[in-house]
Amino acid sequence: MPLKVVLLTVMASSSTFSAWALNGGLLVPKVSRNNSEFICNDLDCCVKRTPFMPTSPSAHVSRSCVFPGAKAIDWRRGKLSPKSGLQCKALEVDTKHSFSLGNKFQLEDVIEAQQFDRDTLTAIFEVALEMEKIEKNSAGSQILKGYLMATLFYEPSTRTRLSFESAMKRLGGEVLTTENAREFSSAAKGETLEDTIRTVQGYSDIIVMRHFESGAARRAATTASIPIINAGDGPGQHPTQALLDVYTIQREIGKLDGIKVGLVGDLAYGRTVRSLAYLLAKYKDVKIYFVSPEVVKMKDDIKDYLTSRGVEWEESADLLEVASKCDVVYQTRIQRERFGERIDLYEEARGKYIVNLDVLNVMQKHAVVMHPLPRLDEITVDVDVDPRAAYFRQAKNGLYIRMALLKLLLLGVFILDDEANLLRM
Amino acid sequence: MPLKVVLLTVMASSSTFSAWALNGGLLVPKVSRNNSEFICNDLDCCVKRTPFMPTSPSAHVSRSCVFPGAKAIDWRRGKLSPKSGLQCKALEVDTKHSFSLGNKFQLEDVIEAQQFDRDTLTAIFEVALEMEKIEKNSAGSQILKGYLMATLFYEPSTRTRLSFESAMKRLGGEVLTTENAREFSSAAKGETLEDTIRTVQGYSDIIVMRHFESGAARRAATTASIPIINAGDGPGQHPTQALLDVYTIQREIGKLDGIKVGLVGDLAYGRTVRSLAYLLAKYKDVKIYFVSPEVVKMKDDIKDYLTSRGVEWEESADLLEVASKCDVVYQTRIQRERFGERIDLYEEARGKYIVNLDVLNVMQKHAVVMHPLPRLDEITVDVDVDPRAAYFRQAKNGLYIRMALLKLLLLGVFILDDEANLLRM
Amino acid sequence: MPLKVVLLTVMASSSTFSAWALNGGLLVPKVSRNNSEFICNDLDCCVKRTPFMPTSPSAHVSRSCVFPGAKAIDWRRGKLSPKSGLQCKALEVDTKHSFSLGNKFQLEDVIEAQQFDRDTLTAIFEVALEMEKIEKNSAGSQILKGYLMATLFYEPSTRTRLSFESAMKRLGGEVLTTENAREFSSAAKGETLEDTIRTVQGYSDIIVMRHFESGAARRAATTASIPIINAGDGPGQHPTQALLDVYTIQREIGKLDGIKVGLVGDLAYGRTVRSLAYLLAKYKDVKIYFVSPEVVKMKDDIKDYLTSRGVEWEESADLLEVASKCDVVYQTRIQRERFGERIDLYEEARGKYIVNLDVLNVMQKHAVVMHPLPRLDEITVDVDVDPRAAYFRQAKNGLYIRMALLKLLLLGVFILDDEANLLRM
Repeated sequence: MPLKVVLLTVMASSSTFSAWALNGGLLVPKVSRNNSEFICNDLDCCVKRTPFMPTSPSAHVSRSCVFPGAKAIDWRRGKLSPKSGLQCKALEVDTKHSFSLGNKFQLEDVIEAQQFDRDTLTAIFEVALEMEKIEKNSAGSQILKGYLMATLFYEPSTRTRLSFESAMKRLGGEVLTTENAREFSSAAKGETLEDTIRTVQGYSDIIVMRHFESGAARRAATTASIPIINAGDGPGQHPTQALLDVYTIQREIGKLDGIKVGLVGDLAYGRTVRSLAYLLAKYKDVKIYFVSPEVVKMKDDIKDYLTSRGVEWEESADLLEVASKCDVVYQTRIQRERFGERIDLYEEARGKYIVNLDVLNVMQKHAVVMHPLPRLDEITVDVDVDPRAAYFRQAKNGLYIRMALLKLLLLGVFILDDEANLLRM
Repeated sequence: MPLKVVLLTVMASSSTFSAWALNGGLLVPKVSRNNSEFICNDLDCCVKRTPFMPTSPSAHVSRSCVFPGAKAIDWRRGKLSPKSGLQCKALEVDTKHSFSLGNKFQLEDVIEAQQFDRDTLTAIFEVALEMEKIEKNSAGSQILKGYLMATLFYEPSTRTRLSFESAMKRLGGEVLTTENAREFSSAAKGETLEDTIRTVQGYSDIIVMRHFESGAARRAATTASIPIINAGDGPGQHPTQALLDVYTIQREIGKLDGIKVGLVGDLAYGRTVRSLAYLLAKYKDVKIYFVSPEVVKMKDDIKDYLTSRGVEWEESADLLEVASKCDVVYQTRIQRERFGERIDLYEEARGKYIVNLDVLNVMQKHAVVMHPLPRLDEITVDVDVDPRAAYFRQAKNGLYIRMALLKLLLLGVFILDDEANLLRM
Repeated sequence: MPLKVVLLTVMASSSTFSAWALNGGLLVPKVSRNNSEFICNDLDCCVKRTPFMPTSPSAHVSRSCVFPGAKAIDWRRGKLSPKSGLQCKALEVDTKHSFSLGNKFQLEDVIEAQQFDRDTLTAIFEVALEMEKIEKNSAGSQILKGYLMATLFYEPSTRTRLSFESAMKRLGGEVLTTENAREFSSAAKGETLEDTIRTVQGYSDIIVMRHFESGAARRAATTASIPIINAGDGPGQHPTQALLDVYTIQREIGKLDGIKVGLVGDLAYGRTVRSLAYLLAKYKDVKIYFVSPEVVKMKDDIKDYLTSRGVEWEESADLLEVASKCDVVYQTRIQRERFGERIDLYEEARGKYIVNLDVLNVMQKHAVVMHPLPRLDEITVDVDVDPRAAYFRQAKNGLYIRMALLKLLLLGVFILDDEANLLRM
């Protein structure tokens, strides 16, 4: 894959260069050309217009080009590949500032919620916020121009797929879509997932995979030489949903430490609430309330985990009381498919805890209602107009989180040596 | 979503501006922000490097900037948001000229054929003609670069989908495709259309929707904060087909007033002929002939409507005689699916009125044969080579009409004040 | 379709330049080249704002602008459309050099392996090698920007589709996807393939078609006014697979003359081995070994063809012996679907010739194992890590071959007159 991106150069002392720097744009050294040629990431014309000419090597220019020890990350896998001799000083930045986590931040694949520590979450959320600005205020970004994302879906999930594809395209990237991956590999002709990944990675720069088997994403990541994002693997993980949930709380409530969260509905099978509980345990003084019909109660593994991490939790049958105390009421759909023949149990369970105007009325002014969507009638439609109804904003946050992950996985970080401003993508 | 588009600007006499002009780029006033902010259409670098600064209002600059009363349409919803104080002079135009319908032209959604008055049709057709030039003569347009169209198809219709997606891409826009929308929302898990729309609008800038229920498009438009185009809703409307039919007559015959049109085939169920009859009633001195098997005769509602609008019509069983008089012979396919068990009736009906060389021989030299496609054998293939066979040109016109609608819905119109050249997108 | 591409430039006096600008091809001076080189890209703004001024109007420039008799190929169909009077000097080339086959090289459609002579293969492989460099080393190509490829698949084949779509996007082009073409045309409503092609060609610039009927690609090509690429038509042809196989041998072994190739597995029904045998016959001193279970032996037609072309071949039951002699061991999957009820025969056949470490151990150091993929267990996974396992590189070569074909079909060749440097796309 073409080494896109980034970078480069120049001295403040050179008026030529500083002018050029103001002109900005993503510039890349043209590989397999001589080092003094640069190209603008996505705008051919820029290059043409801004003839960067260390080649016509006026002594002045060559003196300006400091930082002989500049290093560049291998963007594809986040590995460090020092490019000694590269003469460059500053680097381009599509977005002015970036998060700052020191030199070690790296993201190779997104496989499960557990892989993220608190610092990484903070970093991702910072980038997500930046993405929000890009999406809302600017004329669109082209930072992923030239990159190809393959959506390798072994089972259809249009909502998730659309969100990822929108994220990629909002950043200028391109998409290869497969909603019937099941047909073209394992299931159809007996090809292994590993072989499929080896083929598809030849056609793309990143793979977003949804699979029906738990653990499939990890197997893919082990094989792949390009980043893998797990977009749900069977009953297993759906880490981007977990991230967007936590990000939404951060955005809506303004903090994650010290919050009270009510998890409502299907707590036994709903992987979103399980992941959310897991991630909330990384923050301080969190209190979690479980409100669910008897048949779909939160399982002991999560309860034990929370306890082991010192997270306070309690079960309650009183949605109104819980709602009155919480910062977040996280409602979920009771999934009919979990009940098999027992429609009676399903009907009983689904009607039990409904978020309606009564619930809204006892909620605090700053609190919000969340829901992973789709919803049936577990939140009544009259709630929608209330500003505390955050579920559609939450869905939108999925876009920002996915934009952030794509940026981090594909562009990684860029670090110049210690002689100067540390500037990164 | 980033407000792309359009731009504007500047005085020759101002050196500031000419420098800016050299830097180029498509700039747009950021709507609903303060007037002095501009954004570069698709070139991030432009933005960065062309700080357009009426804000640093050197007296000189402000003097150069005439047209203080410039107004801009809110591009997203076509609403007028006057920007008094906007200091600008000229504007960019991707295409040199635009239609001129006065200041009131607006298009928010495309839901049904009935929504268009004659002036609007004229405006759309002007833009379609412009699109035809773009597609044929230029190096491709990028006016919709950065825009995302979601094709939300609850039932597959590859022909219509391809036409819309081609239209979007021909203008530089991007597409999110869902041909199985039915799976991911209502039908699958019980989500309402309204909830689906609220989610999808977070991922895209315009939704092209095909649905199996009459009225679905209107419901979507009521909910959506972004434009909706109806690409067919069950037995209801398919307004872009209606528009392309009328546009084709205009392009082929050169006029819409005073024409004679023969509608042939399935007039009872064919929504294209019904919409066409409806739209033709907006023009003067139109005469319509109905030629159809007894079982699929034109229904009374359309006949009554035509009569009420003073449109002359008559039924005839003599295709040859009608063909000899008409400017347009509009043939349609007899749809087998309308006949249920009665294959015998279907077989009788479908063979009755065939457009073949005999029909062609009696037609006038300037007249044309149209057909919404696909065809079976109701037009014989030996007709294809005759220049009067307009049906493939008609299909192509669907592209131009859809390009025009996408442009109008996404970019809207731009109007400077009356002091000067009225220039619009 | 817009005539994209290319070209060029210019007159001596600056006044002519404005004329040129009005003419509008999008031209940009190629950076860090001499001023007389131009590139046409797709950025409207470039045209507008890059008043090309080699005219820094030295008289010298005007003298340089020779080639008054420049001719341009009609890129869409390879037809010559002289543009007399066009004053131009140089032309763009995205890639420095191109293959040189004289002036007559042209490629209109890709229908079957047989259409390629040895020179054409060489030319395609040269371009494929260039594509390999583009994909690996540069910042991504935009040479097909503005072009639309329709993937018209009457039966799904995700692997092939992804490869083509990746190829198109790696070159900056766009894609319209249909995996259910069968639904929207012939099968569904009785439309002929010819009518479908006439419609789809209105929406795109090139059609990649997969069909279930042998001969369908040729029918499409006969109808179409735009290039058709056969991506497999039933039991018929799959020419791009054949090309990538031969290209892989060239790349891996370094030559095609004088090689020894063992074809293993399903030789009766596997169209890849049949096509490969056919193409290898174009080279000198090739020796082919057939190693297959009795029930799926190579058929006489190919054997007779090889004999008639003087190609040596023999059948063998000893895979180890063959492997020890060959440059290429081309393994194939025994296709269960060919055996119908006779599972017993299938089971017997599939286990017979497996490429495993034993086989690898007798192979020469420079030799390679190939496979069209997907594989089941006819190559054991422990072979994968050996550098001689070429099958995933082979799959990747499919990308390069398809990039090359898209470039050749869409951009064709560009020829200046005989006065000077022959420059071509």
